[in-house]
Amino acid sequence: MPETADLIVHSAAQIATCASPDGPKRGAAMRDLGLIEDGALAIRAGRIAAVGPTRDIRARFSAPQAIDARGRAICPGLVDAHTHVVYAGDRIGEFEQRIAGATYLEIMEAGGGIVSTMRATRAASVEALARDAAARLDEMLRLGTTTVEIKTGYGLSVEAEMAMLGAIAQLAATHPATLVPTFLGAHAIPPEYRGREDAYVTLVVDEMLPQAAAWYRDSTFAADGVPLFADVFCERGAFTLDQSRRVLEAGRALGLGLKIHADEFTALGGVGLAVALGAASVDHLDATTPADVARLAASDTVGVVLPAVNFHLGSHHYADARALIDAGAALALATDINPGSAPCPSMPLVMAIACRYQRLLPAEALNAATINAAHAIGLGDRVGSLEAGKAADLLILNTADVRHLAYQLGGNVVERVIKNGAVV
Amino acid sequence: MPETADLIVHSAAQIATCASPDGPKRGAAMRDLGLIEDGALAIRAGRIAAVGPTRDIRARFSAPQAIDARGRAICPGLVDAHTHVVYAGDRIGEFEQRIAGATYLEIMEAGGGIVSTMRATRAASVEALARDAAARLDEMLRLGTTTVEIKTGYGLSVEAEMAMLGAIAQLAATHPATLVPTFLGAHAIPPEYRGREDAYVTLVVDEMLPQAAAWYRDSTFAADGVPLFADVFCERGAFTLDQSRRVLEAGRALGLGLKIHADEFTALGGVGLAVALGAASVDHLDATTPADVARLAASDTVGVVLPAVNFHLGSHHYADARALIDAGAALALATDINPGSAPCPSMPLVMAIACRYQRLLPAEALNAATINAAHAIGLGDRVGSLEAGKAADLLILNTADVRHLAYQLGGNVVERVIKNGAVV
Repeated sequence: MPETADLIVHSAAQIATCASPDGPKRGAAMRDLGLIEDGALAIRAGRIAAVGPTRDIRARFSAPQAIDARGRAICPGLVDAHTHVVYAGDRIGEFEQRIAGATYLEIMEAGGGIVSTMRATRAASVEALARDAAARLDEMLRLGTTTVEIKTGYGLSVEAEMAMLGAIAQLAATHPATLVPTFLGAHAIPPEYRGREDAYVTLVVDEMLPQAAAWYRDSTFAADGVPLFADVFCERGAFTLDQSRRVLEAGRALGLGLKIHADEFTALGGVGLAVALGAASVDHLDATTPADVARLAASDTVGVVLPAVNFHLGSHHYADARALIDAGAALALATDINPGSAPCPSMPLVMAIACRYQRLLPAEALNAATINAAHAIGLGDRVGSLEAGKAADLLILNTADVRHLAYQLGGNVVERVIKNGAVV
Repeated sequence: MPETADLIVHSAAQIATCASPDGPKRGAAMRDLGLIEDGALAIRAGRIAAVGPTRDIRARFSAPQAIDARGRAICPGLVDAHTHVVYAGDRIGEFEQRIAGATYLEIMEAGGGIVSTMRATRAASVEALARDAAARLDEMLRLGTTTVEIKTGYGLSVEAEMAMLGAIAQLAATHPATLVPTFLGAHAIPPEYRGREDAYVTLVVDEMLPQAAAWYRDSTFAADGVPLFADVFCERGAFTLDQSRRVLEAGRALGLGLKIHADEFTALGGVGLAVALGAASVDHLDATTPADVARLAASDTVGVVLPAVNFHLGSHHYADARALIDAGAALALATDINPGSAPCPSMPLVMAIACRYQRLLPAEALNAATINAAHAIGLGDRVGSLEAGKAADLLILNTADVRHLAYQLGGNVVERVIKNGAVV
């Protein structure tokens, strides 16, 4: 008697499982996609019941519904481990100023940058924030992203940061993607705290983070076992290393997961801090020193690089992701989607940039965008690879070779998205 | 009594007309999109009857069909002035070799590159070539491209080059996009002519081009007033300047329009040749000298830059499009879509790259991708801008600001495409 399943997807030219039962992939394992030729998946109750050769899966399971994936490649739904997808306004004026020669730090110091998005976001309702972000999540889903980390950080007051958490909760209740919230009250110093930076850090530590943690305990995220992260932007013009430590230690004391924006422009020591505190991830890594590459490689912290930012800023410098992989660090990719430095919903474009300017092979880029990204947001046990027991989040591509996800540029090779076992 | 129209598109937040009645845009005019706020178009028999403020158009026209474009920006359908969209096979192996360190010229000299696509293309039927290219044209259309130049050049024998023209004719008969054929028998030296390069040029000049010209005279392209171009790849390892001159002079003697691939890696004098022969365009221009920038600016030849190639090759060098505009040259953008150096169907991504790495403003990129691109392929009088009498080829965007086409990365802001007056 065959086992029953809800859906069998079969006859795929290849399935890239990205399987990695023992944590994120490192080193040479990054080139291994766990490929199954003529592959199939049995899906039951939104999860993967089994994956293997079509002949084996069809012999073992029967299901009322089947999808013939002949001539097509399948891979896990992509995981975007670093986003600011909840925001209001755009920053096209700033984009044109930069084309005319202004630098990101110059724009930030002149009151543009994050603070301009803060103004627009504070002025928007929770409903408007959620509606605009939902449209972006829809486009991300069409491009293959089924799990998305989302940061606050455009409110920068207790009330406005809590409103951003409210928008994220509203999205989680209505959008098919799996969402992971991150509290980033320490994203920038709001104008009203200029010259009183430490007082703003105190506000984050004493009021914002405790309120965020209390909100989280009663949220569906906690009920579903999805973590809440605390994050800080450790950078010249944002938060010092000491201020960053205060924020992350407060987050840790509240039981939150930890993340840090480090080494985007300046190496202030954020990698060492992340490793010392056991952060889930350290993100950006554009200016990371060789010593910190080694430190990260020896740790359990995932390094998340965000090459759409470098690209959007027209930079000729990219994070040395090749060195991170070769040193043995667990490397992930993410969009950093935001209106100022990465108006980019597309993980495939991020993978494409990484292959061209960071010398990742397509297979390495795919592992970085799936299983390793899942570990960067604390969901390595439930999404990011096609293994029995994990969520049935998968992409059916319009090509027989999964490497086309990173090889093709600017189009969309994702033909069908299956999220928690349902075609969306 | 109002005039009748078939369709009125009205209430657009803005219409970028890209209007330029006197030829391609140059210099400061490149920043002018001919914007109309609260704009409308009246469309009749597939052409634009009038464009202007909504109030004026609605007072002047009545139509059985209307589209409310409230909150949306409208621009001309994009024109892709340089493509190799008809081909068989992919070049992922070569892509991975390049990531591991091989250069494009090394791959070409080792028998990879164009010749590997030649083998796959020669082995494919006309029907298979047309079917695969149609799928690519569909994706290009979704991304806003309504007019496409298509080159031969993967056949490299009389028979196989004529088969490529046959595939282009089949596409033109079946696909909604307007297609413009270019004969590029002189794309590469086929292996059977290694060491006898001049004999291959003689084959192109004495047999291929005359057959192509004869084919053209009886084609629907000629009947519709769409030109056939002759093109040559003037580059180290491809065709010398003298060989290029032989090809283009033969094309000119047959009454064909002229194009040239010049200065992609090496400045061999192709710009001077193009200008001297009155070519419609000179394409690539990555290694162009300041003297040739000035020569081009003083001519009627359009300079077409192809930054998706530089991007795909992971280059930190891009054509100096800024210098070309500032010198007064007529600049256009194109994808160069092909499996080896630009697997990119997306004109918006090309515009995005140009804004980041060639310092074009979004408005300049849009003019380069519309009106100037139309002039590069001899259709400046019928597509590329929204002016009365031109084809009703237009894009309705999902944003109120047309600059989002170049500002956003990797998604698709094109909500609806109207081609020859019909929603596709």
